[in-house]
Amino acid sequence: MKKNIIKAEQEVLQATRPPFSKIVTNLPPTVPFVPPEEMERRTGQSIHLRLGANESNYGMSPKARQAMEQAVSESYLYGDATTYHLRRKLADIHDVDPDQIILGSGLDDLLGLIVRTFLDPGDSVTTSLGGYPTFNFHVQGYGGILHTVPYQDFRNDLEGLAQKARETNSRILYLANPDNPTGSWWEADAISKLRDSLPDGCLLLMDEAYVDFAPADTVWPIDPTDSQVIRARTFSKSHGMAGTRIGYAFADKETIQAFDKVRNHFGVNRIAQAGALASLQDTDFQRDIIHAVSVGKEEYATLATELGITTLPSFTNFVAFDMGTPERATAAMDTLWNRGVFTRVPGAPPLNRLLRVSVGRPEERQEFAQIFGDIVPTLPK
Amino acid sequence: MKKNIIKAEQEVLQATRPPFSKIVTNLPPTVPFVPPEEMERRTGQSIHLRLGANESNYGMSPKARQAMEQAVSESYLYGDATTYHLRRKLADIHDVDPDQIILGSGLDDLLGLIVRTFLDPGDSVTTSLGGYPTFNFHVQGYGGILHTVPYQDFRNDLEGLAQKARETNSRILYLANPDNPTGSWWEADAISKLRDSLPDGCLLLMDEAYVDFAPADTVWPIDPTDSQVIRARTFSKSHGMAGTRIGYAFADKETIQAFDKVRNHFGVNRIAQAGALASLQDTDFQRDIIHAVSVGKEEYATLATELGITTLPSFTNFVAFDMGTPERATAAMDTLWNRGVFTRVPGAPPLNRLLRVSVGRPEERQEFAQIFGDIVPTLPK
Repeated sequence: MKKNIIKAEQEVLQATRPPFSKIVTNLPPTVPFVPPEEMERRTGQSIHLRLGANESNYGMSPKARQAMEQAVSESYLYGDATTYHLRRKLADIHDVDPDQIILGSGLDDLLGLIVRTFLDPGDSVTTSLGGYPTFNFHVQGYGGILHTVPYQDFRNDLEGLAQKARETNSRILYLANPDNPTGSWWEADAISKLRDSLPDGCLLLMDEAYVDFAPADTVWPIDPTDSQVIRARTFSKSHGMAGTRIGYAFADKETIQAFDKVRNHFGVNRIAQAGALASLQDTDFQRDIIHAVSVGKEEYATLATELGITTLPSFTNFVAFDMGTPERATAAMDTLWNRGVFTRVPGAPPLNRLLRVSVGRPEERQEFAQIFGDIVPTLPK
Repeated sequence: MKKNIIKAEQEVLQATRPPFSKIVTNLPPTVPFVPPEEMERRTGQSIHLRLGANESNYGMSPKARQAMEQAVSESYLYGDATTYHLRRKLADIHDVDPDQIILGSGLDDLLGLIVRTFLDPGDSVTTSLGGYPTFNFHVQGYGGILHTVPYQDFRNDLEGLAQKARETNSRILYLANPDNPTGSWWEADAISKLRDSLPDGCLLLMDEAYVDFAPADTVWPIDPTDSQVIRARTFSKSHGMAGTRIGYAFADKETIQAFDKVRNHFGVNRIAQAGALASLQDTDFQRDIIHAVSVGKEEYATLATELGITTLPSFTNFVAFDMGTPERATAAMDTLWNRGVFTRVPGAPPLNRLLRVSVGRPEERQEFAQIFGDIVPTLPK
């Protein structure tokens, strides 16, 4: 009897619950990444080498740090919703108009905004199978349909992507270049050819989070008058400001105006704006970081060779170790975790045999080399 | 002939431009607020008294500031996407479960997320006529239809709102309490009655940005098991952290899980998380600020009386001066601007006769009193 009353009450509550949107209702529970802090809490394992999120363990420019420390005391004031000074500085550096630039609270935020601005529910999007999970998360979160093209030799298959976009009438073709999680890179000529083969009305969304680590003279020139291309970038990687949440993109003016119709205008925090502006001015620091990271990548490659493991060439701040099989890659990641080292293995084949390791500082790399050297002989064949 | 070629080329370009989503295409260009920095650039007027955005010119807790300054050097690392420590602290303070709390990069971000999670395009939303523009911006940005209810005696018309929500089959009823831009407040009994009169399946979205300034013993108790109510709050006002971009909301667990399906998981920056946690621990500072603001509000009321102007009672950190007519209110705002003082006048009648002035620090109030005293006699009758 009591049970029935409780059940009846529950039904009343059920009836009044506001329904979620159709898209949200139909989505499975999912998160793009479980953060390492949460994994530490779940496993009871404390991490002392954080090499799994491609953060820059070198930190940020001292000038950026100082600018941010100073900005803290002013951050009782809202930041400038127009990000005026940053857009001017970026425009100056890249020889574009400030009206062709948008800032967001991280590149993830901009990916969501771009998807939202261009996609109607049911629209198709093309990306690589095993590409950036957060982009996929946004596409599904706005009701888009993902079409994927397998990597070829651990590189994005540009011809395959263009063909898939054509076949599926995709609204967006997403390309991470340099690529995450492989570290691979297509030079200007190849991208130019991809752009020329784009179906009419399909947007080429280039995620260039790691572009600062690629050879500068091979980067496809920016042309923000081309309404079919968006170049999205971030201060999280070479600028070492992942936790401050600030990213930017180049797009044509009309697209920027469309973003303005829906974006979270006061979303870019004041401290990040100050830090990003200062970081852009410290080109010496940037150059040093990019050099230091290239040294670290060489060290990782040498280490791998010594251990009989192949690495992929990388134009990013991480290296993908090809462990040969998914089982071996996962075992490596798990064993490293149990030794306090955070790395990642992508989920989709054939990338799931790659162990992705961020380039740490020299002392971190030394520690990693020692632990990795210990565990590799213990891994399943 | 040449003209035709140009025209033909333009048509080719036109044909390849990726179309924007239906919602974005149909939206007029609009921004919820032009920031004061942009208004300074447009008018060439430099502002020395910033009293128009309801920031806390007292700044933040010294403990929060210190925590943020320390967090700067760690912010090369992504912040915790689960905001674990903050949720636990907020849960502790408010006697709820951490799973009933969501953090966002500002309350604006959460308003967007809530609208997105509950609204399908074409769905109705009820709010007060002249209510928070950023909420309206998000509703329109997700394709919702706004229905408005005029203020009554400069207060939200609770019965009118519930009736309108019923008539329009609204999915969301938005209520700012304490209210912006009037500063008015409904106590627990009135809100409880509103909640009981909600149509089935309609969400009561309470924007409580200013709740810390309301009499604590009259605040409607939080019950996050009620799936029809969300209470959204912020660190921008009493905590003085507007520029750091961090807000939170209480909702039932299933709603929090729905948010997780689509939210920008790594969106809350690391520095803001550290500052918010420290600020919550500095309850003495909070108490002092709330007291200081109440002193400031009394000063504004006295000033107004001396100038023959009425003010509205305020349970926020600002005071609305009733200038009698929209013309007089706008003239006051414009004249103040020309004297370097930033204030705001709402756009919608009858609120457009209110001059909204944030409570500044004592020396700022003194300066405001002097300038305002100068200009009031010069205003049109």
